[in-house]
Amino acid sequence: MPEIKAYIFDAYGTLFDVHSVMKELEELFPEKGESISQTWRKKQVEYFFLRQVMGRYKPFDQVTRDSLVYAVKENDQTIDEQQVAHMLESYRQLKHYDEVEEVLKQLQGKELIVFSNGSENMLHPLMEFSGLKPLFTEAISADEVKQYKPSPAAYVYALEKAGVKREEVLFMSSNGWDISGAKSFGFHTAWINRSGLPVEELQLEPDAVYQDLSGILKW
Amino acid sequence: MPEIKAYIFDAYGTLFDVHSVMKELEELFPEKGESISQTWRKKQVEYFFLRQVMGRYKPFDQVTRDSLVYAVKENDQTIDEQQVAHMLESYRQLKHYDEVEEVLKQLQGKELIVFSNGSENMLHPLMEFSGLKPLFTEAISADEVKQYKPSPAAYVYALEKAGVKREEVLFMSSNGWDISGAKSFGFHTAWINRSGLPVEELQLEPDAVYQDLSGILKW
Repeated sequence: MPEIKAYIFDAYGTLFDVHSVMKELEELFPEKGESISQTWRKKQVEYFFLRQVMGRYKPFDQVTRDSLVYAVKENDQTIDEQQVAHMLESYRQLKHYDEVEEVLKQLQGKELIVFSNGSENMLHPLMEFSGLKPLFTEAISADEVKQYKPSPAAYVYALEKAGVKREEVLFMSSNGWDISGAKSFGFHTAWINRSGLPVEELQLEPDAVYQDLSGILKW
Repeated sequence: MPEIKAYIFDAYGTLFDVHSVMKELEELFPEKGESISQTWRKKQVEYFFLRQVMGRYKPFDQVTRDSLVYAVKENDQTIDEQQVAHMLESYRQLKHYDEVEEVLKQLQGKELIVFSNGSENMLHPLMEFSGLKPLFTEAISADEVKQYKPSPAAYVYALEKAGVKREEVLFMSSNGWDISGAKSFGFHTAWINRSGLPVEELQLEPDAVYQDLSGILKW
């Protein structure tokens, strides 16, 4: 097996807990926080897929706003512009998972890259806020080429930025669709299966499956 | 507004109730039928999106099989080949919604087309079994061009088969993603909102929203 020369990490769900906004949602929508948070993420991902298939790209902040509005409506609630802005700001302050910082510290000296569907105006503030930014070589947004993961065009962009061969990449994500897309593209993949879900039935099995990010230290 | 010259209907969820397999699922997996049925459909649609984005087309019967296996595993159950075959056979015998036959009878004389992601080996037996086939002019499968809805390439194929202009089509679907894709492509759209969901937040509102298919008689 070729040596891994670049470690590429998905951001949302992998480094950062998208459901850490639940407390803010619960304050705005009592007893609906969890339901809205789950639908918000579900629709956010669905809207990436749909926009990619329809050829109607919009940046992550727009899709995140739209999916929040949908989730609120599906839960029979209403949200005003100020509350939307507040929740998008919370999305720039998501909590990172407990083990992330220690794992990144142990991997220092290697090429460590974040590669996300997040647009710069969402991803970069989040990286800054979390304090994780100095631990990475680079943060790449798929928005730079207006192609969402899991389209091959998105992964090829990250690969070019990394400047290595595709079989020299280890790609990590908690999202089954992202791992499937990366495997389809030709990266080595480690699925960070935080929720204990079955492997996607897409004939694109990940090379390794770990419960959290500390598993990759055994790669 | 131009005259409607072709009425194009989605099949699964629109004419046919995909959850009418719940009884068979419940017999195989007691107390898990509803959960498996919901996940089955959710993953089936997700796998269409993912395969379209990744450029890894597989026909509807394969995707339907894969998503069933996933749904069973997510519910901590197991399924053997014979049971999979039994459930796929049930999928060729889905029940149509109550009002469908009467609405189609009232529209006789017009160009009435079914257009589905279903491959021929799933869609045609279903049309036969339901008795609805004689009420339609034609049943078109997106499988003929290996492009799933909501990709523009799928809708353009249906349009060419219909032999009309895109603004002369009224497209009907219960699936928000399908209505968004058809609207994006340029069809007139009537969303058959059977579940009382909010309109998708994709800036592609349907031209009309009805609770069931009988609404289109008012178009």
